[in-house]
Amino acid sequence: MLQAQRLQTDQWKSGTRVNAQLRARSAERTRSMILDLIRAHGRISRVELAALTGLTESTISSTVREIIADGLVLETGFSESTGGKRRTLLGINHAARHGVGLTIDHERLTYVVADFAGELVGSLTAEGTGDVHPDNVIVRMASEVKSLLRDLQVDPVSVVGIGVASPGPLDGRAGVLRGRQPTPEWSGYPLRGRLEDVSGYRVALDNDATCGAVGELWTSRRGAPRPVSATVYMADGIGCGILIDGGAFHGTSANAGELGHICLDLNGPKCSCGGRGCVEVYAGPAAVVARASKDRALVKRLDLDPDRGHRSNFARIVKNAARGDEQCLELVTFSARHLARGIVTLCNILDLDEVFLSGPGFSEAGAIYSLVIQDELDAATFMRSVHPVRVDVANIGSEAAALGAATLILQQELTPHSVLRSAGSRVTLPTQLGAGA
Amino acid sequence: MLQAQRLQTDQWKSGTRVNAQLRARSAERTRSMILDLIRAHGRISRVELAALTGLTESTISSTVREIIADGLVLETGFSESTGGKRRTLLGINHAARHGVGLTIDHERLTYVVADFAGELVGSLTAEGTGDVHPDNVIVRMASEVKSLLRDLQVDPVSVVGIGVASPGPLDGRAGVLRGRQPTPEWSGYPLRGRLEDVSGYRVALDNDATCGAVGELWTSRRGAPRPVSATVYMADGIGCGILIDGGAFHGTSANAGELGHICLDLNGPKCSCGGRGCVEVYAGPAAVVARASKDRALVKRLDLDPDRGHRSNFARIVKNAARGDEQCLELVTFSARHLARGIVTLCNILDLDEVFLSGPGFSEAGAIYSLVIQDELDAATFMRSVHPVRVDVANIGSEAAALGAATLILQQELTPHSVLRSAGSRVTLPTQLGAGA
Repeated sequence: MLQAQRLQTDQWKSGTRVNAQLRARSAERTRSMILDLIRAHGRISRVELAALTGLTESTISSTVREIIADGLVLETGFSESTGGKRRTLLGINHAARHGVGLTIDHERLTYVVADFAGELVGSLTAEGTGDVHPDNVIVRMASEVKSLLRDLQVDPVSVVGIGVASPGPLDGRAGVLRGRQPTPEWSGYPLRGRLEDVSGYRVALDNDATCGAVGELWTSRRGAPRPVSATVYMADGIGCGILIDGGAFHGTSANAGELGHICLDLNGPKCSCGGRGCVEVYAGPAAVVARASKDRALVKRLDLDPDRGHRSNFARIVKNAARGDEQCLELVTFSARHLARGIVTLCNILDLDEVFLSGPGFSEAGAIYSLVIQDELDAATFMRSVHPVRVDVANIGSEAAALGAATLILQQELTPHSVLRSAGSRVTLPTQLGAGA
Repeated sequence: MLQAQRLQTDQWKSGTRVNAQLRARSAERTRSMILDLIRAHGRISRVELAALTGLTESTISSTVREIIADGLVLETGFSESTGGKRRTLLGINHAARHGVGLTIDHERLTYVVADFAGELVGSLTAEGTGDVHPDNVIVRMASEVKSLLRDLQVDPVSVVGIGVASPGPLDGRAGVLRGRQPTPEWSGYPLRGRLEDVSGYRVALDNDATCGAVGELWTSRRGAPRPVSATVYMADGIGCGILIDGGAFHGTSANAGELGHICLDLNGPKCSCGGRGCVEVYAGPAAVVARASKDRALVKRLDLDPDRGHRSNFARIVKNAARGDEQCLELVTFSARHLARGIVTLCNILDLDEVFLSGPGFSEAGAIYSLVIQDELDAATFMRSVHPVRVDVANIGSEAAALGAATLILQQELTPHSVLRSAGSRVTLPTQLGAGA
């Protein structure tokens, strides 16, 4: 974008050729904006589109004609009469396009299909990657996508692409994972390229917590988005998705929101990220299980089993905490207090308005976490004298991140101007020329 | 804005009256966008404006006619001929409007005047607030603004308002400080209202680090802004301004970027914010002076004097560190390492692209800080395998925050669509309807 701008500035002198290019880009943006407005409103008339965008009614008419011809939008009836002429209303053709979302995980793969309005069409849960070679997992993924589309009777031609949600660090631009999940073998593996080759679809890779935050927003239908909110996503690790006025904040390389790797103690225990005293080494499920495992009587009483993997052991601990078991309550509270300290730092940097707790880590003991975190934020954020920060448990299933990934690829393909690149800007707005241009 | 949107949705049925309102808002946005494009480009033709905005040439013509009539824009010559017709170029009328910026501080008040293009016209440094009652300081401020405008021969009628930069926490919406600086007496004092009453100008209150980041960007002329950058501002405290695609990120209440209050050790020394082990208690100027003061021989050798206030004592320490004094170097390195750990957390949350060090705290030993911080970021950010984060000393004077405050009030008054409310959105864009609408 910025390169394109510089190009424009340099080439303006050369006249009409460049202006033709600019006009084409501008028409694309107009189309993107109009599609987004129709989607967001459900039903809207051409006159209202003109008023909202500042574009002339003739520009609106020709653009709408084009997107109706493409089958993206339908005329869905008339506005109520208020004395004047009744207006034809436009609505999104839900079935026109679909997006597939997929969360990649060692123990479980979750697939969803979303329609053009971002609504869930159906989902599939399958075996995780395990320790199988990525090449073989990719082949299975492509085949599972195909059979899900067939089962849901979704036309494969209507699918714009596959959004893959993964824990970070990842290189969103190169489409490559850079961390140790689901297995170290995936680090550096050309996930996007291979899945594109095998599936035939366009693929985009994004942070699971960011996808979770987007999915949570789309499914919660809470109404107006908050100015700045964070959706804390706890599964194996702890991340968070940051939403600004309802749009996903990605940071420079889609690695924003690494809440689990906020340092709480410079001299604390070592963390897998190479740092010390990170939130995750106190608050993460594995840390909670490790603390519990030091007490043999507790291990016996809860029937904790190191061979079972820490997820199900963690689930036992939080279930018992929710039932009032004092020892388990102490373990969960210890985790919640440390997570809360990380969220205080998040607030002090982002001046958050609201925090949502989401992901399987909160499914049993969300209420305990929520209370402890709310207390800590009320007592300790830097801006507590100015405004409170509300903590809520987000009521979502395991499909949230996958649904977010599906909606992000739909946005990227069809309403590109609405996708937040870093965060401040929609991709093609002229105001990006900003101060430095 | 969101309220306004809901209003629109509810009232659409009532037809033309509402559409007239929408049209008025849309005309305002068009005007704001065109002004911003002309400012950013220096010189630009109507045809290019049409191509860049997607608006029709007739909309551009009528809007440009209006802003020329208002004296905001001038016709400044013709484009070079490339065979076709030469085009009239438009440029901002620098003298048409001015903004005053002011940093409020216990020891020093800095005033600047910026022209409509955001360029520095002149500045004034005056005595700080000291412990004088706010009412009396406000009267002096209004009079100093008046005399600065007179000295610079700036027409008072051309001034759109006064931007005040202050350390947080503050309530930007209410125009009230909420912290202990410059003195606790200012906390809760109706600064904005009083200064508006006494000066007769509109006043806006903003975070000093955010203003510093904006001022740094405007004066550095680095070219294209980075996707996500932070300008660390060290004076008495340590804050940072966050820029996203060149726009200021404010958070919910203009309190984003409190880097100094990132917790590095849950069990660390108490901090003035009520927390423990904050970055400031290890890295801030007062902390460096306190560590130095424990060594009597050093106090004597550097002639440190507790009665002098920590600013000048800190200046002695960093000057000696820069000259290679080993003990001072150790003190500064200790500060830099802890600051670096806070910046690592900042990177892990925001996925930063670049960090600038600015403010008086870095004026003598910026190079030492920069080296230590760069090493730490290279070794410890969560996304280090994906991309590096560059650290640079920002070459700016003490006027940066004041200039930023002046440009922010100019933007707010004249190109409101370009001001980032929280961060994701420009104030009046239809895409804000987004997912939740």
